[in-house]
Amino acid sequence: MCPADDTPDGPLTSAQIAERAGVSVTTVSKVLNGRADVAPETRALIEGVIHRHGHLRQKRRAAAPAALLELVFRQMRDTYAIEIIKGVQRVAREHRLAVVLSELQGQDTPGRGWVEEVLARRPTGVISVFAGLTDAQSGQLRSRGIPFVLVDPGGEPAHASPSVGAGNWGGGLAATRHLLELGHRRIAVITGPESSLASRARLDGHRAAMDAAGVPMDPALVRVGDFQTMGGLTRTRELLALPDPPTAVFVCNDAQALGVYRAAAEAGLRIPDDLSVVGFDDLPPARWTIPPLTTVRQPLTEMAATAAAMVVTLAGGEPLRQTRVELATELVVRDSTAPPRRG
Amino acid sequence: MCPADDTPDGPLTSAQIAERAGVSVTTVSKVLNGRADVAPETRALIEGVIHRHGHLRQKRRAAAPAALLELVFRQMRDTYAIEIIKGVQRVAREHRLAVVLSELQGQDTPGRGWVEEVLARRPTGVISVFAGLTDAQSGQLRSRGIPFVLVDPGGEPAHASPSVGAGNWGGGLAATRHLLELGHRRIAVITGPESSLASRARLDGHRAAMDAAGVPMDPALVRVGDFQTMGGLTRTRELLALPDPPTAVFVCNDAQALGVYRAAAEAGLRIPDDLSVVGFDDLPPARWTIPPLTTVRQPLTEMAATAAAMVVTLAGGEPLRQTRVELATELVVRDSTAPPRRG
Repeated sequence: MCPADDTPDGPLTSAQIAERAGVSVTTVSKVLNGRADVAPETRALIEGVIHRHGHLRQKRRAAAPAALLELVFRQMRDTYAIEIIKGVQRVAREHRLAVVLSELQGQDTPGRGWVEEVLARRPTGVISVFAGLTDAQSGQLRSRGIPFVLVDPGGEPAHASPSVGAGNWGGGLAATRHLLELGHRRIAVITGPESSLASRARLDGHRAAMDAAGVPMDPALVRVGDFQTMGGLTRTRELLALPDPPTAVFVCNDAQALGVYRAAAEAGLRIPDDLSVVGFDDLPPARWTIPPLTTVRQPLTEMAATAAAMVVTLAGGEPLRQTRVELATELVVRDSTAPPRRG
Repeated sequence: MCPADDTPDGPLTSAQIAERAGVSVTTVSKVLNGRADVAPETRALIEGVIHRHGHLRQKRRAAAPAALLELVFRQMRDTYAIEIIKGVQRVAREHRLAVVLSELQGQDTPGRGWVEEVLARRPTGVISVFAGLTDAQSGQLRSRGIPFVLVDPGGEPAHASPSVGAGNWGGGLAATRHLLELGHRRIAVITGPESSLASRARLDGHRAAMDAAGVPMDPALVRVGDFQTMGGLTRTRELLALPDPPTAVFVCNDAQALGVYRAAAEAGLRIPDDLSVVGFDDLPPARWTIPPLTTVRQPLTEMAATAAAMVVTLAGGEPLRQTRVELATELVVRDSTAPPRRG
């Protein structure tokens, strides 16, 4: 590495980057455009220079025809995705940005191809739902000045990425407090997958409500789910087969709550008379289950709009007031909860 | 208009278009890029020349960084939209196209701003779900060689646009034939809005099944719905209040079927014992209603993938084998249908 490399002399043009890295301008251009035909060590060298100094965009770049906002989902499953898309679209319309949608089909991080395509599109910014980026991928976006914001990060949030989430812990607390106030003591929980921090926070909120009420938690009543309806069905069958089954279930998302409803129907139990159920999400179908679902509302559309606004702020070169924003959840009481039956 | 204008001499460069229209190249470029700052009569003049001769794209155009596929929804409501997006994404991935998503928030045709933005993005093609384009908008896309395909057109399909739909008539026939075979005679129908051709075809299929079985249709049992759950609830309350209520309902989409379930529960009726229900769509939630919904499956993901493949074919300069593709529907029998109760 040549000593000049460490001089903090501000962003460099492509030609200056080429000079520092000892490569041709064409090669620098290939890396900036996310092309694959560059040797890994050459790419690393050029990205190192860009990372240390930044890249001075040419005037020509500013005249790019399409201003794009990238929205990437780990998986688009139910109306959850629709709520998110609506929020992003709202902000995108205000700023005349086109929303490019991709789905990782359940992978935790995007593959190499995805990043290269994103770099080639030169978007205003990237919003990711559930999915994180690898450190290398974050670095590639950062070195091109493409801002990246996470919505509802499923795992450990990447070190430097701004993110928007919901008050998961508070939601779990409110759900279980509601059940306790109705008189329930045998309260089960069906969580999300163990890798989900959001689910962990909801469980911790539940635990806090139980502790505050002095009600001991029975480990047999805590079941690890997978955020899917079938998982909710299976876990509830197990719970109802216990010698001392629960009188209420707090389910860490609405999709699993549908599985609880099915299991209750199979067992000939009525909701809420024989079993109370509280969900989490308040997706539109929650109003149409029979009975309508009591659930913790997370403001998904607002969360997505907030993330999009953060991307726009960063793309405009402004700093964020907060790099981690948490929007409040709210318990919506409908008809799936009631006092437990005596005897 | 100068006589040279009618010479069929193939596509013109921007400079040639400017010469014919008697305007500057800059003005032609503005129109090609969808910019708003061109007088309407000048725009019309230039578009006329482009329409008659075509526009010869410059080499520089071919190097555009982002290959985009535009997907526009009239309204994104439930998992219907997710199924469509998945199909478009599948084909887009194969062809390394990025999917740009927009929603018209319930408008029937996009506003002027939308088309200008699309033209500025120069997409590979446009797929529209429910929403049609005005003649002027189709013309703008056509004159730039941007192919346009409709999915499940809600109204009268635009004259020249290729489209993909489902076998709606056959689905309506199969739904009602199933109910007739179970022994039902008092069969109600809740349609979609009257503007929906798809709904009209489903109703006609129902009528054909009734006629074939020699069962007269009671006009009181045909209710115009709106494809929304609340509409299904309201229409079913009306049906159940009739002096001679139906023993079965064919509902022209799954969302309304949820409203039928609610109305039945309100009236203390059990599905299927007291009321049989057949839906239309087979969206994922249909498996999780209690009881699981018998419904007519339309292959939404396949329909969307077919539309995307048609756009890719047209963008490659190939002709379509068919400009109107209809994919078959299929009755999926679950637990919401049974023979009518005697007495």
